[in-house]
Amino acid sequence: MPLFTDLLPDHPISVEHAMRIAGDAAERARGTTRPNPPVGCVILDTAGVPRAVAATEPAGGPHAEAQALAAAGDWASGGHAVVTLEPCHHQGRTPPCTGALVQAGVTALTFAVADPNPIAAGGADWLASRGLDVTRGLLAEATANAALRPWLHVQATGRPHITLKTAATVDGRAAATDGTSQWITGPAARRRVHVDRSRRDAIIVGTGTVHTDDPRLTARGADGTPLGNQPLRVVVGRSDVPQDAAIRAGGKRFLHLPTRDLTEVVAALTERGIMDVLIEGGPRLAGAFLRADLVDAIESYIAPAVLGAGTTTVDTGVENTIAEITRFRTIRVDRLGDDVLIRAVRGADD
Amino acid sequence: MPLFTDLLPDHPISVEHAMRIAGDAAERARGTTRPNPPVGCVILDTAGVPRAVAATEPAGGPHAEAQALAAAGDWASGGHAVVTLEPCHHQGRTPPCTGALVQAGVTALTFAVADPNPIAAGGADWLASRGLDVTRGLLAEATANAALRPWLHVQATGRPHITLKTAATVDGRAAATDGTSQWITGPAARRRVHVDRSRRDAIIVGTGTVHTDDPRLTARGADGTPLGNQPLRVVVGRSDVPQDAAIRAGGKRFLHLPTRDLTEVVAALTERGIMDVLIEGGPRLAGAFLRADLVDAIESYIAPAVLGAGTTTVDTGVENTIAEITRFRTIRVDRLGDDVLIRAVRGADD
Repeated sequence: MPLFTDLLPDHPISVEHAMRIAGDAAERARGTTRPNPPVGCVILDTAGVPRAVAATEPAGGPHAEAQALAAAGDWASGGHAVVTLEPCHHQGRTPPCTGALVQAGVTALTFAVADPNPIAAGGADWLASRGLDVTRGLLAEATANAALRPWLHVQATGRPHITLKTAATVDGRAAATDGTSQWITGPAARRRVHVDRSRRDAIIVGTGTVHTDDPRLTARGADGTPLGNQPLRVVVGRSDVPQDAAIRAGGKRFLHLPTRDLTEVVAALTERGIMDVLIEGGPRLAGAFLRADLVDAIESYIAPAVLGAGTTTVDTGVENTIAEITRFRTIRVDRLGDDVLIRAVRGADD
Repeated sequence: MPLFTDLLPDHPISVEHAMRIAGDAAERARGTTRPNPPVGCVILDTAGVPRAVAATEPAGGPHAEAQALAAAGDWASGGHAVVTLEPCHHQGRTPPCTGALVQAGVTALTFAVADPNPIAAGGADWLASRGLDVTRGLLAEATANAALRPWLHVQATGRPHITLKTAATVDGRAAATDGTSQWITGPAARRRVHVDRSRRDAIIVGTGTVHTDDPRLTARGADGTPLGNQPLRVVVGRSDVPQDAAIRAGGKRFLHLPTRDLTEVVAALTERGIMDVLIEGGPRLAGAFLRADLVDAIESYIAPAVLGAGTTTVDTGVENTIAEITRFRTIRVDRLGDDVLIRAVRGADD
């Protein structure tokens, strides 16, 4: 039951600041909550001091609001609940959060994103009717493009959200011509790759990558020990995955889909309740997802380095013209040591 | 005589803040000062309020210090001069700046980078001996990697500083397979390219780029009008440059070097007093400079887009292995709309 109290200042903060903290908590819960969305909740007391923060527990466990209210105790009375998603209003495996908020004596609610699920929605209206001061849509776009994005995508499309990861030099090389690639990015970027993996439901690579690189694709800490959450490791392609392939080691979370038909791949993942998928390579698999218009976001690690020859990160293997470019909207740029991480998403109307 | 007074706050500022403003002023003078370095100077009055800012004028005109002192007038008396480079101590085309500082009654001097030129150096020691409170090395590394870097490079190596510009998708494509490339980056990045050109001494492209793209390579504003300073436009390669090539238009600042020998290219530019060179393409020319270890810095524009096929920005045309990677140190990352500009430099020991 992580309460992320390290995220909390001990003085009054703005509601927007509280929302950012709730978003940070939600980010930490990514990859563990399905079929529920990773939600974050902060409880401010009557003076605006944050008294608790929590995120959704694994399915069947409490939602963010219930946990944060429990942790805040009496401080919640007369307080303000700040949540990344509209509180649910239905009895699922857990009681509705709306009732819990009223019962705790919370008098104000701010949320970022409205619940698009017709079964669970209506929470905000109900709380307003019970006298709470309700604010909707604070930091809505940023929040919808962060931890909540895969779940929102599943609600809207019925299929998992797919992120393409690339890691390359500024001239787009993921490996030298002899296949060597260790290391193009630096330690900070490589650590981030592992933390990111631990927050995904599934990672996909092609059989070519398994044969060439024999990656483990586990999420590991700086000292090599496994991180708490391990994504499903999926290999796509008709070639065999050798019995001694590293990707088979370390537990059962391995799946070989012996097909090149991405419709079948997406169906198999959807069936397993996968919401958040990361494509880790290689270039031909990435190219196939791109051509099938199945790339919903990119996470691109760029190293300030030039190779001048070698393989690229994405290879469709077909002729093209500039009008066929697939564009994304940048949502965040981070420096990781000397490297740069660009996160960008497809727009709703792209 | 631009005094950049738009850069000045009307309240007391820290010396570090003043140094950043001096750096900004120097940045605006880039491309116009050779053989002098582009230097910036801020004069703080006795209360720490910035009263003047100036940068080096074109050769033969006043240095930054002289201009800033003239603009500050009586405010300089008892004040603090904040300069990106150690003030010169020799009589060149203009009187030494050290004398001007004493004459104006300045009582404190802070500079970022020591003058490596033995003829002009010694200014700081002399000013200290005259009773000024001298501080050396404030923001030295950042300043040495900004506007001053090409001039410092020339002092240290005797050859021009060469920056490789790349502009590509996250998968490293500068154009589609049919050669189309308009536009990969957005308007903000394209505007920055023109401002950057106006601050270089020379731009280099290969004859292949001239034949394929027929670029003008002038520095133009958003409305298409030429910016104040136009770099020398250099075409490298044995093929002819057609008489009607766009790069020949718009004035005499055009040079064809009909050779593939980069030693000859560098010699020709050195001879003309060129300090700051930008390679704008194409991939084979960039690859040749890379293989010759003649790339001192990179400016890489990355668009959040994927093409999956097409040409890369750098192409050495030879097999390689990861150990041959050319690494740079990131000095600055900027967002330009959805695009990202990464600036990185070779280290002294790379």
